[in-house]
Amino acid sequence: MPSTFDIPALEDLIIALARAAGEAALPYFRGEYAQEDKSGGKGRFDPVTEADRNAEAAVRKLLAEHRPDDGIIGEEYGAWREGTDLVWVIDPIDGTRAFISGLPLWCTLIALRVEGRPLLGVISQPYLGEVFVGGPSGSRLIRGGEAQRLRVRPCPMLTDAVISTTDPKLFDGAEAGAFEQVRAAARLARYGCDAYAYAMVAMGRMDLVMETSLKPWDWEPLVPVVEGAGGVVANWKGGRPDYTGQIAAAGDRACLDEALVALKRAAKTI
Amino acid sequence: MPSTFDIPALEDLIIALARAAGEAALPYFRGEYAQEDKSGGKGRFDPVTEADRNAEAAVRKLLAEHRPDDGIIGEEYGAWREGTDLVWVIDPIDGTRAFISGLPLWCTLIALRVEGRPLLGVISQPYLGEVFVGGPSGSRLIRGGEAQRLRVRPCPMLTDAVISTTDPKLFDGAEAGAFEQVRAAARLARYGCDAYAYAMVAMGRMDLVMETSLKPWDWEPLVPVVEGAGGVVANWKGGRPDYTGQIAAAGDRACLDEALVALKRAAKTI
Repeated sequence: MPSTFDIPALEDLIIALARAAGEAALPYFRGEYAQEDKSGGKGRFDPVTEADRNAEAAVRKLLAEHRPDDGIIGEEYGAWREGTDLVWVIDPIDGTRAFISGLPLWCTLIALRVEGRPLLGVISQPYLGEVFVGGPSGSRLIRGGEAQRLRVRPCPMLTDAVISTTDPKLFDGAEAGAFEQVRAAARLARYGCDAYAYAMVAMGRMDLVMETSLKPWDWEPLVPVVEGAGGVVANWKGGRPDYTGQIAAAGDRACLDEALVALKRAAKTI
Repeated sequence: MPSTFDIPALEDLIIALARAAGEAALPYFRGEYAQEDKSGGKGRFDPVTEADRNAEAAVRKLLAEHRPDDGIIGEEYGAWREGTDLVWVIDPIDGTRAFISGLPLWCTLIALRVEGRPLLGVISQPYLGEVFVGGPSGSRLIRGGEAQRLRVRPCPMLTDAVISTTDPKLFDGAEAGAFEQVRAAARLARYGCDAYAYAMVAMGRMDLVMETSLKPWDWEPLVPVVEGAGGVVANWKGGRPDYTGQIAAAGDRACLDEALVALKRAAKTI
């Protein structure tokens, strides 16, 4: 591990990275910007915006100044030195569909992966001025110069749970059946929140989030935020999140376990 | 019509009412508050919070001071003088499910109904500090002391439309079929936005919103905001919104007409 490994300094840096991404992205929010369709007009609409690219470029620029020897994996500009001990994992705008719809629930996500596992993470929403940051010292919401400690809430019963997924239509057949079983049991379901739902789990406002087809930059930044607040992030078998892209996060392990009864039936293997 | 009828003054008042409601509700957001279940534990979860009641009480207090002779219809405290020429129609917190989930997409909605039709309306989100106000002089977003004029965007084709509904599960059988037909044609669908989606139509970020089972306090405040920005609000037959509670709002009349081909098949009669 490099001699410069200093968690408080890296926490300050990851917050600065999130803020730089936000400053680059925010002028495009509800403004005019180039859009292209990654699917080339075929199939599901997959918007990418100039804002995505500019936000990731802003993060990479700061990393080049402050951490030139670390690796980087970003959604827009690919991987570089990804075998290094310290790797920054970047989703410049998670929730581009919310972004293009004018909804302030898109986020910048950044993780610091240390020896293969996410150690620090941020979920940042610049229009709201919110930075949720998590790591070994716990999780905090930083807003307007004030920091608020984040704690999950107890919710042992799925019937009491507020649950969320980005879009029920993203699940395949077996996944859709499993999700529907969980949804039918839960108290309340919310859709379209992307990473912001995980911040709400960390804050003790939601209890369970389930998603599929997540890439490492979608889920690695969430893990330290949820776990630092006392929650748990797992794959649909209940193990450590992995490249299946099937992720479940909960504030209360008992609530997760109840959901896993259904989710396990649709769990994939890498 | 009363001699005190002065649109700019009433616009200032409706903004002040929205701000008073926001000040009453905001301390409860993401805080501790009493919840009860209107359904008495039976059936669908229907949260009501102290925040709802305090916000409506704050609006009624200001109206008692400034407009003691007008009528009032509020979601929480009922109707009073509803046959008067000027009636204030109040939904103190639209989107209580978003509210209890920690999501800043709930809104305070207020309309001024004049001779049976909504003349002025506000959609206010206090955590974001946003007040969308509409009336005969057009629609504006007021935030941080700045006012931005709102204009819908052209979107003649449903295939290009960003659409929204609060929850596809709220539709009955025929409605669900009609909505699904519209959703399958549209470019992108968003859920869970409640009244905030109508503000996004007025802002030219979304193109079409469809809902059912709306009460007058849910839809009357939206009409001046959407229409003042150049859009249209209709029932599912394409006529003036009414007590069917089936509402469709669009920035572009052509987009609405295309959706109505499907929606009309599920349209109700009062």
